[in-house]
Amino acid sequence: MKQMEEKILAEGKVLPGGILKVGSFLNQRIDTVFLKDMAREIAALFVDSGVNKVLTVESSGIAIAAAVGMEMGVPMVFAKKHKSSNVDGTVYSAPVHSFTHNSDYNMVVSTDYLCRDDRVLLVDDFLANGQALHGLIALAEQAGATVVGASAAIEKGFQGGGDSIRAMGIRVESLAIIESMDDTGITFRR
Amino acid sequence: MKQMEEKILAEGKVLPGGILKVGSFLNQRIDTVFLKDMAREIAALFVDSGVNKVLTVESSGIAIAAAVGMEMGVPMVFAKKHKSSNVDGTVYSAPVHSFTHNSDYNMVVSTDYLCRDDRVLLVDDFLANGQALHGLIALAEQAGATVVGASAAIEKGFQGGGDSIRAMGIRVESLAIIESMDDTGITFRR
Repeated sequence: MKQMEEKILAEGKVLPGGILKVGSFLNQRIDTVFLKDMAREIAALFVDSGVNKVLTVESSGIAIAAAVGMEMGVPMVFAKKHKSSNVDGTVYSAPVHSFTHNSDYNMVVSTDYLCRDDRVLLVDDFLANGQALHGLIALAEQAGATVVGASAAIEKGFQGGGDSIRAMGIRVESLAIIESMDDTGITFRR
Repeated sequence: MKQMEEKILAEGKVLPGGILKVGSFLNQRIDTVFLKDMAREIAALFVDSGVNKVLTVESSGIAIAAAVGMEMGVPMVFAKKHKSSNVDGTVYSAPVHSFTHNSDYNMVVSTDYLCRDDRVLLVDDFLANGQALHGLIALAEQAGATVVGASAAIEKGFQGGGDSIRAMGIRVESLAIIESMDDTGITFRR
């Protein structure tokens, strides 16, 4: 999505440690006009996939996942992050390591909200190491649901998460894939 | 909003301890068709207020705030919840007590994303004791912004938070106000 690449170049800031700050339009402050454009693009990419649910994880994935759900006219479900696992059978749960915060958490969703008949599109703002998406895939597997694909607003291609999911045979569509970035500039995958 | 009252009666579950569970359409699982209806209603209520920013707090407020922002064509900003306060001057910060989780946190937003010229509409999924909205009002005050109003999808009128904010002279519009509820039924404010 050309517009996403332009937005990253215009407003993104590369910080030390491989961090791309896009708080001015994608998280913390959300450009809602652009949000709708992103959602429309993602919905168009998966329009023929029979998606009946959008799945994300709190909290920065919620806005874009809700927008995609609205665009596709299907419900959106978000997993919660818990410190403890819950094994009472009322939730699906997957352990996730966050490289961003260097901490572990359990990704949890009620068994009421994911089921065998679901054809799930995973949506998130960022795709870096892919830990969050692997957690969501695990939740979908526990529910017996089908993952029809995954989409991130921004993929950091050089961190390998997106390609690890593509290697599982899952279609991954990111609106922009950053191949490399440092304080001299940002290069996108072609 | 008649539709909201019907939705609560049809899908809401009253749990012990004054908890109303609406995870099937408002949080965890979000009915995105209904989300757009809610957003349209809130946008219409404040259409003449000169709103130029929607403000909420992570994470369950994000979906409805993003939808309202999209409907009004203005940016949405969400405050983050931190365990520690940050006093380095790059954020606005307010201490908040959560009765739901019986814990304290700091509500934090970057000084980049709230400013003196802002005319802010506060949006959240639930309004109960009003602690979250009071925190957001404190953040807006620190920025010198104007709070033009607040809107919640569901207000628990019997917990008093909404009325405490109305008493400050702030316009509060909730899509449904629950006057009382127990396992025998739910009564709405007229």
